[in-house]
Amino acid sequence: MTYCVALNLQDGMIFASDTRTNAGVDHISTFKKMFRFERANERVIFILTSGNLATSQSVIEALQQDIHNHLDKHLLNAPTLFDVAQLIGLTVSRIANDMEQLGHTQNSTMFGSNFLVGGQIHGQAPKLYYVYPEGNFITATEDTPFFQIGESKYGKPILDRAVHYQTPLQDALKAVLVSFDSTIRSNLSVGFPIDLIVYPKDSLHMPQGIRLQRDDPFIKTMREQWSDGLIHLLQQFDDIPECYLS
Amino acid sequence: MTYCVALNLQDGMIFASDTRTNAGVDHISTFKKMFRFERANERVIFILTSGNLATSQSVIEALQQDIHNHLDKHLLNAPTLFDVAQLIGLTVSRIANDMEQLGHTQNSTMFGSNFLVGGQIHGQAPKLYYVYPEGNFITATEDTPFFQIGESKYGKPILDRAVHYQTPLQDALKAVLVSFDSTIRSNLSVGFPIDLIVYPKDSLHMPQGIRLQRDDPFIKTMREQWSDGLIHLLQQFDDIPECYLS
Repeated sequence: MTYCVALNLQDGMIFASDTRTNAGVDHISTFKKMFRFERANERVIFILTSGNLATSQSVIEALQQDIHNHLDKHLLNAPTLFDVAQLIGLTVSRIANDMEQLGHTQNSTMFGSNFLVGGQIHGQAPKLYYVYPEGNFITATEDTPFFQIGESKYGKPILDRAVHYQTPLQDALKAVLVSFDSTIRSNLSVGFPIDLIVYPKDSLHMPQGIRLQRDDPFIKTMREQWSDGLIHLLQQFDDIPECYLS
Repeated sequence: MTYCVALNLQDGMIFASDTRTNAGVDHISTFKKMFRFERANERVIFILTSGNLATSQSVIEALQQDIHNHLDKHLLNAPTLFDVAQLIGLTVSRIANDMEQLGHTQNSTMFGSNFLVGGQIHGQAPKLYYVYPEGNFITATEDTPFFQIGESKYGKPILDRAVHYQTPLQDALKAVLVSFDSTIRSNLSVGFPIDLIVYPKDSLHMPQGIRLQRDDPFIKTMREQWSDGLIHLLQQFDDIPECYLS
């Protein structure tokens, strides 16, 4: 499986993905699920993917080829991020269909991939889209400022509680890292390292990003503090009422 | 959906279930998913169910009828809890098969139900089993002292972190309540009230149990303390390193 999160907040955007793919537990590999596209000082685009790895990789390569071949419309000349999401939707739907034909199957979910695509184009607001395997997509709003794809349930409660549109980037990032920690602890198919990018709104500059390893000192400390803190928090609750126990 | 948890710990057992069933969000009802069987001072048995409600209810009624009709083997005369689990497995597998025939379908998962069954028989250790829709089952151990059925992922991280075989019942119960809170916040299909039973090991006495409403004062305070505590805990982390943000 996979776990990816993207946030579009007041102060900027955060993109994070694990790097584990599997086809059964005896076949676990590390693959990048985060991709970036840039036109200096004009646009930055970040893409996270989950689902069928063959489809995800083909979509990314097709998008890169479109740029290379100077097509009429590609990621680096699309007028808006809405157009970018549309382009990705068309590409994933076409490729998944091709694969169904090749595979002689009607099972469309088998070849599907999900994409989170976000970023900013000069003069426009930052945007974040969730592109479904069918090619349609939804956009993040102030009410729903984050999307998850892949193994998303384990890490959703902490994001639901701690992340709002107004949450400062640093605080939101802490919640994202805890969300990954919870997922990785509870599900073997999601694993370190974590690819991370923080994009401050209106910078229009491609961040360097970082690949976080399990033994990263900050991550290690954070994981311990969180675990100990949770246990402590539980213990601080009032005593359970007698009537609960009778 | 449904969310049920059962724990078999050093000091006793905990059984908890939500009460919401649905067939689409416009058809949400409250049904009991927790059932108990008792022979005074000799055995107590608790059953939690998830999955197809028609199957779950039929299985419970069939088990009750078997007792009523004084069959050779039923829940109240089975020699061990292993036999009890086997009986439930046979019953669910038979009923799901009957329903498949009736429904003219090969889709066996459609009619399946899961059961958590636990308790204690005089002179024997407390036991907890997870009975699958196919009728086979696994047992909880000191390494894996709890099972969840239904919408289990949202509430798994806190149990993974806080519950061990040696955890005192009060502390484990707090973790269970938080696990329900996380699930209910993140998933509309799981809802209050929560049915709860705490069974102290070797008591062989049927606990009264309690149905916890959303506005229960302890639950309300606990939910607020937990939410505030988590946010506070996140804020207490060291500052995110500069290199994460560049």
